[in-house]
Amino acid sequence: MLALVNGPPPRVVRDHPRPHRGPGDARIRVRLAGVCDTDLQLAAGYMGFRGVLGHELVGEVVESAGAWAIGTRVVADINAGCGACEDCRARGGHHCATRTVLGILGRDGALAEELVMPERCLVPVPDALCDERAVFAEPLAAALHVLDALDALDAPDAADRGRAGPVVVLGDGKLGLLVVHALRSAGLAVRLVGHHEDKLALGRALGATSVLEHELGPHPERARAVVEATGSPGGLALALRLLEPRGTLVLKTTTAGPASADLAPIVVHELRVVGSRCGDIARAVATLATGAVDPSALVAARYPLARADEALAHAARRGVLKVLVEP
Amino acid sequence: MLALVNGPPPRVVRDHPRPHRGPGDARIRVRLAGVCDTDLQLAAGYMGFRGVLGHELVGEVVESAGAWAIGTRVVADINAGCGACEDCRARGGHHCATRTVLGILGRDGALAEELVMPERCLVPVPDALCDERAVFAEPLAAALHVLDALDALDAPDAADRGRAGPVVVLGDGKLGLLVVHALRSAGLAVRLVGHHEDKLALGRALGATSVLEHELGPHPERARAVVEATGSPGGLALALRLLEPRGTLVLKTTTAGPASADLAPIVVHELRVVGSRCGDIARAVATLATGAVDPSALVAARYPLARADEALAHAARRGVLKVLVEP
Repeated sequence: MLALVNGPPPRVVRDHPRPHRGPGDARIRVRLAGVCDTDLQLAAGYMGFRGVLGHELVGEVVESAGAWAIGTRVVADINAGCGACEDCRARGGHHCATRTVLGILGRDGALAEELVMPERCLVPVPDALCDERAVFAEPLAAALHVLDALDALDAPDAADRGRAGPVVVLGDGKLGLLVVHALRSAGLAVRLVGHHEDKLALGRALGATSVLEHELGPHPERARAVVEATGSPGGLALALRLLEPRGTLVLKTTTAGPASADLAPIVVHELRVVGSRCGDIARAVATLATGAVDPSALVAARYPLARADEALAHAARRGVLKVLVEP
Repeated sequence: MLALVNGPPPRVVRDHPRPHRGPGDARIRVRLAGVCDTDLQLAAGYMGFRGVLGHELVGEVVESAGAWAIGTRVVADINAGCGACEDCRARGGHHCATRTVLGILGRDGALAEELVMPERCLVPVPDALCDERAVFAEPLAAALHVLDALDALDAPDAADRGRAGPVVVLGDGKLGLLVVHALRSAGLAVRLVGHHEDKLALGRALGATSVLEHELGPHPERARAVVEATGSPGGLALALRLLEPRGTLVLKTTTAGPASADLAPIVVHELRVVGSRCGDIARAVATLATGAVDPSALVAARYPLARADEALAHAARRGVLKVLVEP
C-alpha cells in the first residue's frame, strides 16, 4: 500500500507492507488524515521513530473480530496499551510501559491507505459528524486534556478561578487554537499570544482576547495559568515570565532537542508545571458532534496521499494551520 | 559593624553601616548564623544581590516597638512583605511583589553583628532549643515545605501513597539531608541519592535507604515522587529520568545560570513539577523544639564573623555540610 515512511531513506511516499492485524485488532481504511507538529518533530528525529507517520485520522473499519465494527466510521485513541497492566485497567493505558503509539512509537501510522489498531481503541463517529471535523478528534482530545490539568492543579484555589483572569495560551498554531476552542467550550476566559494577526483573529472569533508576542512589552500582565503550545523550545522561558506566583503552566510542546531556560522562577515563584499529552477521544467526538467546537476554520490545505511528503513540507511552513491528507 | 558584604569589591568582611530600623521593625543582634548554598549562588551572581549575605540565624531582639520582644531569642521568616497586599494578608507574603528578603533581595542579611526585620516576621525560640539547633529553623522550614508540595500535588492519588514506594531525594548535601529529616518526620519512606557515602550514612541513620548516584544504572527504579535538592543544574535531568508517569517532582534548586535539559519527558509522561522555596518558620521551630528533627549532626564547622569569607569558602568545598558563623 502507499504510505509516508519516516526514513531511512529520507521520508518518502512509497509502497509499504500492509500492517499485520493481530488478535483484537481492527484494520481501518483511512478516509482522511491530519498532519501534526509532532509529525514534523518526528521527521526531525524526535523519538527516533522509523515507520509510517501520522496519528490523526478518521477511517472505516474493514476487518475486525467484532462484527459490530465492520463498515463503521471511526476515530482512534492512538495509545495501544497492553490491556492488562494497572495503567491500562485503571487509566486507559496512555502510560502503559509497553504501549505502542500510532505513527509515533512502534506502530505504523495513518498517513497510509490502511492501519491497524486494537478494536478497544476505536470510537465510532456519528453520521452527522463529517470527516473534515472528525479528523480533529485526536488533537482536540489533547486540547481538551488541558482542562484536566487545570482542574487537577488549580484545585486548592478553585474558588479563586472566577477572579483569576484569563488563561493565557501561548502559540497561535493549530494546537494553540484548538486549546482556545477547548478552554472556551468550558467557559473560561482566554488570552491568546501569538505571532500572526490572521490567526489571532481566529482566536478572537472564539471569544478570546489576543496580543502579538512582540507587543507584550518588558512587564507583561501576569496570569494565573498559562498553556504553552508554541511548539518551540523558547516557549517555556516566555511562559515562566508570564506567570503569577504559584501559577500553573500546562506544557504541551515536545521538541526533538533539549531546551535551555532559567528555571529559577519555577522555584522562586513556586510555580506548578504539568505536562499534558493525549486526551479522551470519546470526549472529543462528543464535543465535535454537539457543535460545541467546530475546528473546520483551521483547515489550510488538502493533499492526496501520493503527495503526503509535500503535505508535510506545506505544514512546516511558518503560519500554516491544519494540512489534511486523503488516501 | 562587621559584616560579610557581597561585592563590589569582591565579598569581604568589612565595616558596614548598621541597618536602619523602620516603623514596625525589630533590631536583632545575631547570635549564630548559617551558610546556605544560596549564599554561594548569590556570591556567584544569582539575583544580582549586593549587600550583606546570610539568611539563616538565631538572634536576640535588642530594639523593637513591641515591648514583649526586647531580650527575646528569635528566628525570622526571611520574607518581609508589604503587609498590606493580598498575598501578605492571606498567605504570609512569601510572594508579595514588593517584598524584601533577608540577605537575598533588597535587605542586608545575617552574616553581620546586627540585622533588622519586621517584628511580625519573628518567631520566639523556646528556652530548651539551643542556638545550634535553632539556627536550622529557616532551612528546615524550607525542607518541611516539600510536604506541602507533595500534599497539594498528590491529592488526587492520596490513597495510592501507601503503596507508591519511597519519595526519592536527590542530593545528599545539607538541604537534601534536611529534606530527608522533614519527610521522615512525616512518616514517609525515603530513598536518598547522592555522591558521598558518609552523607548517605546520615540519611540511613534517619531511616532512609540510600544509593550512590553512579550506582543507579541505566534503568533505575522509577519513583512516584522525587525531590530535587542537588543544587546543581544537572539535577533536573536526573530527576526526570527517575519519575514514574504522572509522577511529582519538587524542585528546590536555584542556580545562577540557565539549565539545559530535554523537557519532553514532562509532556510525554505528564509529570507534575512544582517549585518549592521558603516554608513556615513557626512549624520548623515547633518541629525542632519537640525533637522530631535534630539536625545538629549536619554541623561541619564554626567560624567567627571576622572570618566569614573563609566560612563561605569552606562551605563551597565539595561534600561540606553546614558551616556556622558567630559574631
